[in-house]
Amino acid sequence: VDDLDTPTLVIDLGRVERNIANMAGLAARHGIALRPHVKSHKVVALARMQLEAGATGITCQKLSEAEVMADAGVTDILIAAQIVGPIKVQRLADLAMIVKLTTVVDSVEGAQAIGAALKSRGLELDALVEVDLGFQRCGVAPTDVGEFATRLAAIPGLRFAGVMGYEGQIYSGAHIGDVAAEAERAYERLDIALVSLARVGVVPRCVSVGATAAARLASLHPGITEMRCGSYIFNDLTQVAAGSALLEDCAATVLSTVLSIARRRSAVIDAGAKALSLAQTPGRPGYGLVLGHEASTIKRLSDEHGIIEVHGGPFRMGERVHIVPNSHTTLVNEFSEMVGVRDGRVEEVWPVAARGCIQ
Amino acid sequence: VDDLDTPTLVIDLGRVERNIANMAGLAARHGIALRPHVKSHKVVALARMQLEAGATGITCQKLSEAEVMADAGVTDILIAAQIVGPIKVQRLADLAMIVKLTTVVDSVEGAQAIGAALKSRGLELDALVEVDLGFQRCGVAPTDVGEFATRLAAIPGLRFAGVMGYEGQIYSGAHIGDVAAEAERAYERLDIALVSLARVGVVPRCVSVGATAAARLASLHPGITEMRCGSYIFNDLTQVAAGSALLEDCAATVLSTVLSIARRRSAVIDAGAKALSLAQTPGRPGYGLVLGHEASTIKRLSDEHGIIEVHGGPFRMGERVHIVPNSHTTLVNEFSEMVGVRDGRVEEVWPVAARGCIQ
Repeated sequence: VDDLDTPTLVIDLGRVERNIANMAGLAARHGIALRPHVKSHKVVALARMQLEAGATGITCQKLSEAEVMADAGVTDILIAAQIVGPIKVQRLADLAMIVKLTTVVDSVEGAQAIGAALKSRGLELDALVEVDLGFQRCGVAPTDVGEFATRLAAIPGLRFAGVMGYEGQIYSGAHIGDVAAEAERAYERLDIALVSLARVGVVPRCVSVGATAAARLASLHPGITEMRCGSYIFNDLTQVAAGSALLEDCAATVLSTVLSIARRRSAVIDAGAKALSLAQTPGRPGYGLVLGHEASTIKRLSDEHGIIEVHGGPFRMGERVHIVPNSHTTLVNEFSEMVGVRDGRVEEVWPVAARGCIQ
Repeated sequence: VDDLDTPTLVIDLGRVERNIANMAGLAARHGIALRPHVKSHKVVALARMQLEAGATGITCQKLSEAEVMADAGVTDILIAAQIVGPIKVQRLADLAMIVKLTTVVDSVEGAQAIGAALKSRGLELDALVEVDLGFQRCGVAPTDVGEFATRLAAIPGLRFAGVMGYEGQIYSGAHIGDVAAEAERAYERLDIALVSLARVGVVPRCVSVGATAAARLASLHPGITEMRCGSYIFNDLTQVAAGSALLEDCAATVLSTVLSIARRRSAVIDAGAKALSLAQTPGRPGYGLVLGHEASTIKRLSDEHGIIEVHGGPFRMGERVHIVPNSHTTLVNEFSEMVGVRDGRVEEVWPVAARGCIQ
């Protein structure tokens, strides 16, 4: 590790292996399918490790991520975001030719466009209806799910497979102190959706939810058949704040060098907004935790500099520090590769194959 | 443009050409060297356009950016950040063998390490002393510059070339409403540095400052010989807030598609934190301006979704919108290519060659 240039994204292999095993164990104990979200790492080798640990497939957020993972041999992929527009719908249909693909929809118009493309190729695609679990992003209202599923059933080229939702509001500043209560409220909305389906006589094969910090609750909640958690693989300060990880579960750090100590009570490192990203942790000041300097705060980020307000022991010129990030998901998108380390030695150098898969 | 998949980074070529010509004209009228910062675009073709318009060289923020630009044939490069650590110092020395390179220093220790590497190759490298102009990032205090330059002169392998500073505080929330006054305060600190140099009898060949929004003031300020502005090439909402650009000077937009209008007074687009970045504009809510929907606000960003609070006219499913970003510098790092457009037609597809040049 001492020979690595900085900034570098460093992965603690022991922690990653433990994190993967723990989540796989939780899902297995409760008989729930685990379909990890690979936007959390964007690395083919890590997706394979998750599949080997028992994952039934993977989740992607972008079509281009799914294309990368399909090229690498992953065969069962859910794209957990609406696919809209003629170019993307054609790409989706192309991908459906080569892997077991599942799509999500929350509009009849969107579903019809996808169905038409699939039908013209003689295919039928599994579709999950997205339900708004209170995150207020995409998704139909829980009470409308039954009617929507009925309309979906009439669209050629699509096959209703169930419902999915993302309980992302648990990570918001308003709720991060009480994740369990907020997750319960999200799953009450899910229950309403399931009642709405039952009213029209539709049985969902798959009932899928998403967030790592709610995984224990989700695994106990009746009706949920699948979890799409991603963050658990690396964790970060947001997961620590949400109570779902300890600092020693955080597997991804940015190794950085102190560039300047010219000003008193200040140190400048070579990791800025283009390395750490500007993501924040609700209720926590700064842009990451500097290990060994826990009293200090990364106060500001320029594009390529982090400016640390020093409390406690001083920093040395050229000192190399490990930073636990606020969010690993924006972080992994900033690096072309990540380095897997065990006992201070580099064991793996993984290309972040799906980095920048923006379309 | 209608055939482009989304999200895509779209560049208005007419605006870019005008922005380049205007800044080149300002520098030429005042007899000041312009050394544009290429972190603002990371594109070889745009660096060439700036050089053809009269730039004396380019500025990079990272060694790896400089390596990319040198490979592409750029011959005169300033790296405007401290180069620290044995790996980077060797790379710096390698690069100094093939281009006219200038480095910046703010510590004797850092300068000695660079000097030793250069001297061992029989080279001498131009070094600028970084002065803290009030941004409180890197740089020695203005009153200490004379003494520091004297010590620098005694280090073999380095040649004192002058001073540089970055007046980045003008973009902070506290100052963005009165950029001129804050820039004047920054240049008063620069004057103190020049007095400090004069006291020890040292004449700086180069006196270099940085920010686009201060360029008019810098061009009038006695003693300043070089401007490293970068933002002017594309501009963004931060430049608009700083009063240095109009909305019609903003040349970079993100083309995005509406994915979901399932909730009332809300629209979800396919550009999130991994496209627009989480950069904000002081005093302005949201994560960018949606052209044609100026009353609406991009209220939240997930990794791959932007959530718009709709005011005024509604959004349509599948509608394609152009978004003016808060900050173009974090933005360009999110895209592998950018598309140059004129009169609604694609003329150029440029790889963002220095994207992710993090080390």
